[in-house]
Amino acid sequence: MNGAESLIRTALDAGIEVCFANPGTTEMPLVAALDAVAGMRAVLGLFEGVCTGAADGYARMADKPALTLTHLGPGFANGIANLHNARRARSPVVNIIGDQATWHLAADAPLTSDIMSLAHNVSAWIREVNNANAAAPDMAEAIAAARQYPGHIATLIVPSNCQWDPAGGASKPFQADRVEHAPDNAVKASAELLRKSGAKAVLFLGGRAMRERGLKAAARIAKKCGCGLMCETFPVRIERGGAMPPVEKLPYFPEQALESLSRFEAVVIAGTRAPVAFFGYPNMPSMLIPEGHEVETLATAEQDAQTALEALAEAVGAPSEGVAAPRPANPRPTGALNPKTVSGALASLLPEGCVVMDESATTGLPFFMTTMGGPAHTYLALTGGAIGQGLPCATGAAVACPDRKVVSFQADGSGMYTLQALWTQAREHLNITTLICNNRRYRILEAELARAGITEPGRIARSLTSLAQPEIGWAKMANGLGVPAVRVETAEALVTHLEKALAEKGPNLVEAVF
Amino acid sequence: MNGAESLIRTALDAGIEVCFANPGTTEMPLVAALDAVAGMRAVLGLFEGVCTGAADGYARMADKPALTLTHLGPGFANGIANLHNARRARSPVVNIIGDQATWHLAADAPLTSDIMSLAHNVSAWIREVNNANAAAPDMAEAIAAARQYPGHIATLIVPSNCQWDPAGGASKPFQADRVEHAPDNAVKASAELLRKSGAKAVLFLGGRAMRERGLKAAARIAKKCGCGLMCETFPVRIERGGAMPPVEKLPYFPEQALESLSRFEAVVIAGTRAPVAFFGYPNMPSMLIPEGHEVETLATAEQDAQTALEALAEAVGAPSEGVAAPRPANPRPTGALNPKTVSGALASLLPEGCVVMDESATTGLPFFMTTMGGPAHTYLALTGGAIGQGLPCATGAAVACPDRKVVSFQADGSGMYTLQALWTQAREHLNITTLICNNRRYRILEAELARAGITEPGRIARSLTSLAQPEIGWAKMANGLGVPAVRVETAEALVTHLEKALAEKGPNLVEAVF
Repeated sequence: MNGAESLIRTALDAGIEVCFANPGTTEMPLVAALDAVAGMRAVLGLFEGVCTGAADGYARMADKPALTLTHLGPGFANGIANLHNARRARSPVVNIIGDQATWHLAADAPLTSDIMSLAHNVSAWIREVNNANAAAPDMAEAIAAARQYPGHIATLIVPSNCQWDPAGGASKPFQADRVEHAPDNAVKASAELLRKSGAKAVLFLGGRAMRERGLKAAARIAKKCGCGLMCETFPVRIERGGAMPPVEKLPYFPEQALESLSRFEAVVIAGTRAPVAFFGYPNMPSMLIPEGHEVETLATAEQDAQTALEALAEAVGAPSEGVAAPRPANPRPTGALNPKTVSGALASLLPEGCVVMDESATTGLPFFMTTMGGPAHTYLALTGGAIGQGLPCATGAAVACPDRKVVSFQADGSGMYTLQALWTQAREHLNITTLICNNRRYRILEAELARAGITEPGRIARSLTSLAQPEIGWAKMANGLGVPAVRVETAEALVTHLEKALAEKGPNLVEAVF
Repeated sequence: MNGAESLIRTALDAGIEVCFANPGTTEMPLVAALDAVAGMRAVLGLFEGVCTGAADGYARMADKPALTLTHLGPGFANGIANLHNARRARSPVVNIIGDQATWHLAADAPLTSDIMSLAHNVSAWIREVNNANAAAPDMAEAIAAARQYPGHIATLIVPSNCQWDPAGGASKPFQADRVEHAPDNAVKASAELLRKSGAKAVLFLGGRAMRERGLKAAARIAKKCGCGLMCETFPVRIERGGAMPPVEKLPYFPEQALESLSRFEAVVIAGTRAPVAFFGYPNMPSMLIPEGHEVETLATAEQDAQTALEALAEAVGAPSEGVAAPRPANPRPTGALNPKTVSGALASLLPEGCVVMDESATTGLPFFMTTMGGPAHTYLALTGGAIGQGLPCATGAAVACPDRKVVSFQADGSGMYTLQALWTQAREHLNITTLICNNRRYRILEAELARAGITEPGRIARSLTSLAQPEIGWAKMANGLGVPAVRVETAEALVTHLEKALAEKGPNLVEAVF
């Protein structure tokens, strides 16, 4: 057994099942080990951002890490943007990076670079393997670090000679860490604040609080106390529709977020931290909870927010059934395509039990509200703002959930960063329907220019926010990547083709042009 | 005038003409400044690796820096792989990265990350602007740092409030640094070694030594001394064909490189350092010059190698005319497509005076030898091994040289990393013909598996080196990105369509499938 085999064996013994890979020469012994030590599913991405985004989507749905396998510093660098998103999602991910043989580092060969400094940006845990016998124990530690609740990014750098040299054997997995509970006095203080404030309080949910158990408890608390329910602007993963309660989303722009929270006087936070503005603007605050509001943290992101919400429901004497979202009317839209009709088309056709990866940006804004009480579904958002997460994350979610339809609701500008994911979807026959919102612009940047006081942008500013020249043909590109696709320009055509696409076992793609 | 305008004004005053941009919200004042302060060409890339690779290609052909404009840590991270290549090419590049407003950093908003640690990996010079008045002087310093001979990567992080706050004005450009000359005793020692060793010596050329003046001097030296002429495996930029001398390329694999250099007993190095193996392999050395060879360094990469070669030519008493490469017969190939016929088709049709960006990997191996004495052309290679450089680098070269045809000789696997460059080529009407070598595999990895002793790869190893399932349709993707394209499957069809494509003012693309 060599170092590479001992590393893969250790991962398998710890229950890791999938490796999203884009290997190069310095990872060849690890590639060979994937055959020698049977049991790991290897999924090839043609760009590293596909691999890391897929690992994030997989982790959100499977609640356990996948491996990524990338090639030295530059290869890993291509995966950093989506690891940034994964870090913000608190997704467990274990990155394996091959490096030059230890004795070859001093030669400063062309691909050599300071991998540590790159890994530092996104990793909670980093180590470079020193010799082949260390590969297995280092791997066991990496997995334990990644699994620390709710999830972290662990990065293991493995020089090629530590892969091919002989090694002792696999290492036993660490015992799973216990999850920290929220303190009793946090439950007590939160209960008091909710009782005192009634409808003037809001329960602000994030992280793991937005899973089924947490939301059911939140619904009971809302029923008893009359408080509002609100979640983070970009939820990692939230269960919605069906029996889930109505949960409002904190708006994106700070003035709207402040206005939204100013309807309340008290905030109880569960599973996350107090919300902050996405960007700083002149004369706007960083913190979004208005001054003077009373704030209690029931559970941090690192604590078991679901159990804390159940304890809080008991503490306030909540009934066994909570508030439920009313079933909305979502008629099939007609006429021209625009954010309302594109979002409306998807809302009207949303398959029961699907997973929605939403990187639809400005086009999808109406979608969240109109699907609050519709068919049950899991909703994933872009957590770290690094665009190009949607297509890879949907890919990973589909690997984790082969029995569910994944809907990839995707803006065109963002989608262009990692469109290579479509090829992996085709190769792995993943059940994903992608809906591309081809509005031929970075519309969010048009809005940001206006917010910066530039109401009549000049030639260059218009050019740098426009994707219209030349027009991008997403259906053609999808065909080139092996995914059946259709281009539509009316709401009627969108409804017809989206319904057909959703009924098929994907992958497929519908391009809505407007 | 605000900080952003003072920064752009400073760049213009220093002679910078082009900004390869993929901006976001934190760069909006800089985008507005590009309109307010007229004169900068802004070129949009739909992925940051396109921008940084284009800046590299531009710098290699223009011998001065362009700007890149990217969005915070994750946006910049997407550009690191091609900055790694630019660093190895010693290309001057000035990166401008927007950051959160200084007073908003503490809020740790979703897109916030440690940009310094990312920039560190590829930058010779880094600074974060502290206030709007510092934007202009910091920019002037960044440009000076980038221009330090032969070229460096300078990275300036500009918080958004330092862009929008009022500022004093532009800063004067620094005087250009003088170029360091090679020491006289290096010329003397090199002349002695060449005279002594005759045909047993080789002149090993890299960096700026491979420009016209340097090569003409090298040709004269070879004529006088009978020494061989060899260049780096991956030349930054070499002038070839026409009146240029025959220069052999050091082979890629270490055993071949060692064999190639063992024909000699003495090596004189100009414009680079002693060659090292790209990767370490068991029982192979890091250094490629065989032990026992006599080695002299005429000029390092940081010294003026061209002037040193001219001095060396005088020192050995070289004639005014040097050795010339014989004009090869490059008949148009027929029959099946393979590395020989694909390379042969391009060699047979190579336009006089073109620029060739070669990221053709294994397919293009025969090309370099067969075009040694053909039509005059400039040849650019992948310098740092981070694949995905070709399409962006060709894009930047075409921006720098609007009157020359750029030929982008591109492997399929590598091309997939940054295919978004095709859209920029279409938008900017760049005169680029792309020849895609669609061999549907990472062939170099198949070779590396064999070298690692895995002569019969298992199912997973075969899968991770194959791009055949599904097949990628490059012509379809190019069409989707606005570039006219054709797919061919025989040498005859390749010759016909490549000849037509080369005769047109691009952009266009020919996909050779084999």
